[in-house]
Amino acid sequence: MSSSALAPEWLTTPADPNDLAPAVWPESAHRDAQGALVVAGASAVDLAQHYGTPVLVIDEDAVRARAVETLRAFADAAARHGGTARVYYAGKAFLSTAIARWVVDAGLGVDVCSGGELAVALAAGVDPARIGFHGNNKRVWELERAVTAGVGTIVVDSEIEIERLAAIVERLDAEQSVLVRVNSGVHAETHHFLATAHEDQKFGFALDAAERAVARIRELPRLRFAGLHCHIGSQIFGVAGFRESASRVIELHERLRAGGEVPLLNLGGGFGIAYTRVDDPSPIAALADGIVDVVAAECQARGIPLPVLAFEPGRSIVGPAGVTLYEVGTVKPVTVQTESGDAQRLYVSVDGGMSDNARPALYGAQYSARLASREGTGAPALARVVGLHCESGDIVVDHEYLPGDVTPGDLLAVPATGAYTAPLASNYNHIPRPPVVAVSRGVARVIVRGETIEDLLARDTGLDSGTGRPAGEGEG
Amino acid sequence: MSSSALAPEWLTTPADPNDLAPAVWPESAHRDAQGALVVAGASAVDLAQHYGTPVLVIDEDAVRARAVETLRAFADAAARHGGTARVYYAGKAFLSTAIARWVVDAGLGVDVCSGGELAVALAAGVDPARIGFHGNNKRVWELERAVTAGVGTIVVDSEIEIERLAAIVERLDAEQSVLVRVNSGVHAETHHFLATAHEDQKFGFALDAAERAVARIRELPRLRFAGLHCHIGSQIFGVAGFRESASRVIELHERLRAGGEVPLLNLGGGFGIAYTRVDDPSPIAALADGIVDVVAAECQARGIPLPVLAFEPGRSIVGPAGVTLYEVGTVKPVTVQTESGDAQRLYVSVDGGMSDNARPALYGAQYSARLASREGTGAPALARVVGLHCESGDIVVDHEYLPGDVTPGDLLAVPATGAYTAPLASNYNHIPRPPVVAVSRGVARVIVRGETIEDLLARDTGLDSGTGRPAGEGEG
Repeated sequence: MSSSALAPEWLTTPADPNDLAPAVWPESAHRDAQGALVVAGASAVDLAQHYGTPVLVIDEDAVRARAVETLRAFADAAARHGGTARVYYAGKAFLSTAIARWVVDAGLGVDVCSGGELAVALAAGVDPARIGFHGNNKRVWELERAVTAGVGTIVVDSEIEIERLAAIVERLDAEQSVLVRVNSGVHAETHHFLATAHEDQKFGFALDAAERAVARIRELPRLRFAGLHCHIGSQIFGVAGFRESASRVIELHERLRAGGEVPLLNLGGGFGIAYTRVDDPSPIAALADGIVDVVAAECQARGIPLPVLAFEPGRSIVGPAGVTLYEVGTVKPVTVQTESGDAQRLYVSVDGGMSDNARPALYGAQYSARLASREGTGAPALARVVGLHCESGDIVVDHEYLPGDVTPGDLLAVPATGAYTAPLASNYNHIPRPPVVAVSRGVARVIVRGETIEDLLARDTGLDSGTGRPAGEGEG
Repeated sequence: MSSSALAPEWLTTPADPNDLAPAVWPESAHRDAQGALVVAGASAVDLAQHYGTPVLVIDEDAVRARAVETLRAFADAAARHGGTARVYYAGKAFLSTAIARWVVDAGLGVDVCSGGELAVALAAGVDPARIGFHGNNKRVWELERAVTAGVGTIVVDSEIEIERLAAIVERLDAEQSVLVRVNSGVHAETHHFLATAHEDQKFGFALDAAERAVARIRELPRLRFAGLHCHIGSQIFGVAGFRESASRVIELHERLRAGGEVPLLNLGGGFGIAYTRVDDPSPIAALADGIVDVVAAECQARGIPLPVLAFEPGRSIVGPAGVTLYEVGTVKPVTVQTESGDAQRLYVSVDGGMSDNARPALYGAQYSARLASREGTGAPALARVVGLHCESGDIVVDHEYLPGDVTPGDLLAVPATGAYTAPLASNYNHIPRPPVVAVSRGVARVIVRGETIEDLLARDTGLDSGTGRPAGEGEG
């Protein structure tokens, strides 16, 4: 009986199922003398003991370092062409006041996409001028709050929104700098890209419509058009799709210069990270050089100056700095029929799942895993790490080789969980959301409090007195 | 330019894009004299005004009626073969104290799958004897709480759990009735089913392993084996896959009778509902008759008595009773290239999305939608209802014909949202989760409180004083 018949082609049997592949673990990750995983100077055993499991551990210095490195990469790349670059941290990847402070310390701005994210950034003391506000359907109160707070740029997304924003700035006696979100028609995803005249998606303006939108903004005395915004995809690894996209957007950028200044060009984010050892994203410096070179060459060919370039990475800054710790509850070998005979898969159940990391269920995302409390001694066994939710699709790590002696009580660590886990967390099956603990040089602190069952029951008002109100009477 | 080139084959252009298809709306749904949607006697306009949008509206009497109807259907079906049936409401579909009370009033028990769901059921005053406790990885404290509370049955899922539970009942000086979860190897999903010797999933025991598990339980003096539990799928519409599954499980049930009494057989739930007008689930009475007839015939053929039958519907009870109300924020026509030329899709953005209903993103689930504040006058236009989240996959209703005059400020209602929406809700993009409002005969009350941005910030402890603690020192 061989387990390899069930393994996907990309997953090779490791020589040592306790190894920590550098691509997917924070640089600080290593094993201590007892074999326990150490992240940012803290032992996984100690962290689990003090904060319980599951717990999302963020290596603070890794976030800070990646933020610094990203800004430097784009600034250096732009400087080589005599230009400048700004970097906004995309809060949607994972925003908390602590994280906002770290990235601002590193010289970044913050990109928010709701009144809630704006509230976090403002609570963290982020200079509003360094905040960008995004979204396809910003509500009126959100736009009002953004204008009142004095956010640096609002990215407008539709004709309706331009008029809505114009009325708000008029009412508030304010002015507002805006970017216009365009669909280049090119969408890059990982290694592929697709080019069409019009993207079949909700965001932004098609290229032709964008030109009319900019003309309209320029008629409005209280709105200042600052430039175009585009976003070429998610989890992209190289510049292939970007070249086509940049060419189309810069062509529009050039045309718009006829009607007035266009100081800025925001190219969005979407830079990929390694979730498993086979993912091979370009280093951020290489990606920055590649992207900026393409833009600079396009501008030079058209004889126009390089605008100030802005970028919005989120995942690539916070993602690799996160490690989720779980405790193993059950281990169950399951025999599965394959074309080459029966094979065995080890189902390893942990005490979390799709409530704390929805990405496998949402996107079919692949992750990796390692024993964290000790080094295993068993031969590598093909495992599927599953959660505790009452749903067969509740998978944490679809395919991984773990030491065959993995057993209940072991801690299991899943790396590269810093982005899009806590923000997408639910209370499915009434499971409280875990705490987020930042660690720096062995010192840990809770930056997002974990929930309790009492927290969940506090929203349940079904037992409150009163028999309700007739709809249509009085105030709600 | 025709919009039909973008419509999926199953979606036909309605004669009236304001109609309320009976299959997908609560029976109480109709339009008032002004054209506004009325649910359970309350106007959508009034509900939105008093509770804001988004809001999940639950037609309380519809839940109660479907619970009564389901119990009657299975009880009647079993009675025709001289047997009895129990129905447990599957809390994972959507559990709150109010809902627990409604289904218990109707004569149902409650099936929970975590300590949190158990806490809700107990807070609602559900008789513990009528609670079943499920799950592939119940934690020790959850098992302890369940045993202490005196839950009627615990469904054991692995060899490890049998030993764990045995130790707990010993420690607590208790006894516990248990069911054994089996994988029949048959998995039914909607119109298809798949049969294998062993299911490649995390739940339960393969048929051969289940026999050993039952033997082990019978050795343990404090555990009482009550019967088998199986679950044939999700959103199933007919009895096709069930026949094969039942045959295999009842064969095992018969074998187990050699070693002692087997009073019960729990066949799970998974009964489908209509999300769009083309979904055509069997009425619950027909489904109950079909399933019970199959089981009775199998038992008769084997010359064994019909055990007490138990069922666990969740979605089919609460799903059709829910309607989500949204407000339209933007409307944007997008031209899309198709094989038969350019076509137009209307992107209608609402003030919710994947945070309040993750099913479209998670499962590619299809829904329908109607204007709720008025009847539209425009010709049917192919629309995609999208949310406000910063993600292009944030779709609420993928394909629907709406009146072409749909405009910002309109209320939009999405029916059949009672199940698996609130439980899977997140705070993605720092969007607070909406309230759940129960309505009965025009009287509305909040059964789950909506969140505020302040609630979200309350978990953010990044600004709290203190510099953290060295991991490994003192208590956490």
